[in-house]
Amino acid sequence: MEVKKIKLKDVALRTGFTINTVSRALKNKEEISLSTRKVIQETAKLMGYFVNTIASSLRSGFTKSIAVIIGDISNPHFGITVKEIEVLARKRGYTIFIITTEEDDHLEEKAIQSAISQNVDGIIICPTQRGIENIHFLQKTGIPFVLLGRRFEEEHDIDYVVCDDVNGGYIAIKHLLDIGRKKILFLNGPSYISSARDRLQGYKLALQEAGASFDPALIREIGVTAGESRNEIKKLLQDGIEFDGIFAFSDMMAWEAIYMLNLKGFSVPKDFSVVGFDNIQSRFYFPMLLTTVSNSKTTMSRRTIDILLRKIKDPLIKNKFCEVLETRLIIREST
Amino acid sequence: MEVKKIKLKDVALRTGFTINTVSRALKNKEEISLSTRKVIQETAKLMGYFVNTIASSLRSGFTKSIAVIIGDISNPHFGITVKEIEVLARKRGYTIFIITTEEDDHLEEKAIQSAISQNVDGIIICPTQRGIENIHFLQKTGIPFVLLGRRFEEEHDIDYVVCDDVNGGYIAIKHLLDIGRKKILFLNGPSYISSARDRLQGYKLALQEAGASFDPALIREIGVTAGESRNEIKKLLQDGIEFDGIFAFSDMMAWEAIYMLNLKGFSVPKDFSVVGFDNIQSRFYFPMLLTTVSNSKTTMSRRTIDILLRKIKDPLIKNKFCEVLETRLIIREST
Repeated sequence: MEVKKIKLKDVALRTGFTINTVSRALKNKEEISLSTRKVIQETAKLMGYFVNTIASSLRSGFTKSIAVIIGDISNPHFGITVKEIEVLARKRGYTIFIITTEEDDHLEEKAIQSAISQNVDGIIICPTQRGIENIHFLQKTGIPFVLLGRRFEEEHDIDYVVCDDVNGGYIAIKHLLDIGRKKILFLNGPSYISSARDRLQGYKLALQEAGASFDPALIREIGVTAGESRNEIKKLLQDGIEFDGIFAFSDMMAWEAIYMLNLKGFSVPKDFSVVGFDNIQSRFYFPMLLTTVSNSKTTMSRRTIDILLRKIKDPLIKNKFCEVLETRLIIREST
Repeated sequence: MEVKKIKLKDVALRTGFTINTVSRALKNKEEISLSTRKVIQETAKLMGYFVNTIASSLRSGFTKSIAVIIGDISNPHFGITVKEIEVLARKRGYTIFIITTEEDDHLEEKAIQSAISQNVDGIIICPTQRGIENIHFLQKTGIPFVLLGRRFEEEHDIDYVVCDDVNGGYIAIKHLLDIGRKKILFLNGPSYISSARDRLQGYKLALQEAGASFDPALIREIGVTAGESRNEIKKLLQDGIEFDGIFAFSDMMAWEAIYMLNLKGFSVPKDFSVVGFDNIQSRFYFPMLLTTVSNSKTTMSRRTIDILLRKIKDPLIKNKFCEVLETRLIIREST
C-alpha cells in the first residue's frame, strides 16, 4: 500500500476552509466556531492527518515523554509498578519509554544515553547500583530524574522514593521468630543494592531484639534473575545446611524456593515457613498464598511521578525529595 | 542544583579544539585521529554533553523509536513479550514506548494518537478488537505497524503475527478428554478477540472428533482483568454447574481458577484437571506446575520486530505478512 502523508493543505482542500482556519481548528482555538472545529477535526481524523510534534517540541523544548529505566519488565514486581507509572503519566499527557538494564551497569549507561537521545523530559530509574558513575553522569546532564526503589545513602543530592526496607526486614524476621522458627535463611539480593543492605539490617535487628544469635552462613546473596533462588535452595539442601524459615528478597524468589522445596518432597508451611517481599498477590491470584512484606506500589509510583513532574516543571527547584514509604506484613498461608 | 546545558562550544573550550573538530570527533569521523577522538569523546561525556537528536530526526525523518501498544503490562504474558521485544529493538538501535489500552477501544485510540504524536517509526499493537476503526485510522496514517497475537480475519491487508490458536484449543481439549475428563469448562476471553474465537473452534473440533456433545453452558466468556476468573468459578460452583476439567484462556486465569477451587476445598488435579495457555512457567517457577499450551513468545517477538523493521526500512514493500506460529502442549502437574 502506497501512502501519502496528509498535510494541512489537504484537509483545507477537502473541507473548503483556508489552511489558517484548519490549523487553528485543529489546535481547538475558541475563535473558530464549535461546529466548524468539529467538521475540520473529524475530516482530518478520517483522512489520517496527524500533527508532527517534532517541530513543536523544538519550539517548546519539551517532548512530553519520560523514560523508565528498570532491570526487567517481565518481573511482575516491575510490571505492576510500570503499569501504575504508565497510567499516571498518560493521564497527565506523558508517554513513557521503557528501557531495561538487565541489572548490568554497561547496559544502564546505554539506557541513560538512549533516554537522553530521545530527548525525554525526565527519567525514573531503578539503578543497578553496581557503581555510581552512571548516576553522576545523569546529574551532569541536568535532566530531571528520580530513583525508584533504591538509593545512594551517601549522596545527599539524588532524589529517591523507596520503601522502608529496614522495617520490612525487621517485621518479616520478627514474625518468623514469633511463630517459633529458629534458623532463618535470608535469600537476599546482592549487597551493592541498597534495599538488600537495608533489609539485612532489619534482619539483624530482629534477631538482636529476640536475643537470638546471627549466623552468617544463613545469609545468601543471589542475583535477581529467574532461576537463581531455585538453584540456591537445591544447593543448600544438598550441602545439608539447616534452616526452618526463609525470608526472600522478592515474592518471585520465595515462590521459586517453595517450588524447589516441594520438588524435594517438603511441605510449606509444615516443614518450612516462607516470607516474601512485594505483595504481588495484591494483584495476582496464585494458588500458594504467600506471607509477604507489602510496599505500596501504587503510592510509590504516584510519589515518584509527582516528584519527577514537579522537577520537570521547575528545573531550578531547591527541594530535596527523599521519601521512605511504609512497609507492612501480610500474613497468608506460607507461614 | 542549577544546571547549564553543555554545548559543543563548551567542549571545544575545555579541550582546546575547534567546534568543527569537536563536532566531527563526536560523530566518530575517521578523518579525526583516534586519540583525539578519544580525548574529545571522554571529555564530552565527563562534562555531561549530549546530542540533541530532535534536530537530527527532523533531517532524517526517523526517531529510532517504536511504540508497543498492549492491554496490560503487569500481566506476565505481556511482560515477557515486551521484554523480548525491548531487548531485540534495543540491539537494533531502537527505543520502545509502552502505551496500554486496558482493553478499551477509546484508550486504544488515544494510544495510537499518542504514538503518532511521538513520531514513532513504527507500531506493534495487540488490538482490543472492540472495533476495527482504530486500526483503519492507523492504516491511513501510513505508519508501519504489525498486529501482535490477534488478527482481523476479514481484512487482508493488515499484517499480523499470531500463534496457532485453533490447534492450541484442540490439543488442550484432546488432552483433557484423553485423561478421562467429560465436562470441560472453557474460561474463554471475550469472543470479539480473534484468539478466543480460534481457540473455541479448536475446542469444538476436539469434542467432535471424540464424538462428545457440545454444551454451550460450559463456555464462559469473561474479561481478561485479574479477578474475573476467580469470580466466575465461585459463581459456577454456587450455581451447581457440573464440570470436571477446565481450559483457561491464559495461565493467569488458570491459576485464579485453581486458587478458588482450593479455597472451596477442592484439589487439582484430583477433583479437577486444569489446562492454561501461554506457558508463563517457562520463565517463572511457581509452585503449582501448570499444564499449558505454549506459544513461543521469543519467536513471536522476533518475527514481529523483524517484520516491523522491514516495513520501516521499505515503506512501499508489497509483501503481506500473516504469520501463524506453532502451539505445543506442555503437560505438568495440573492434569
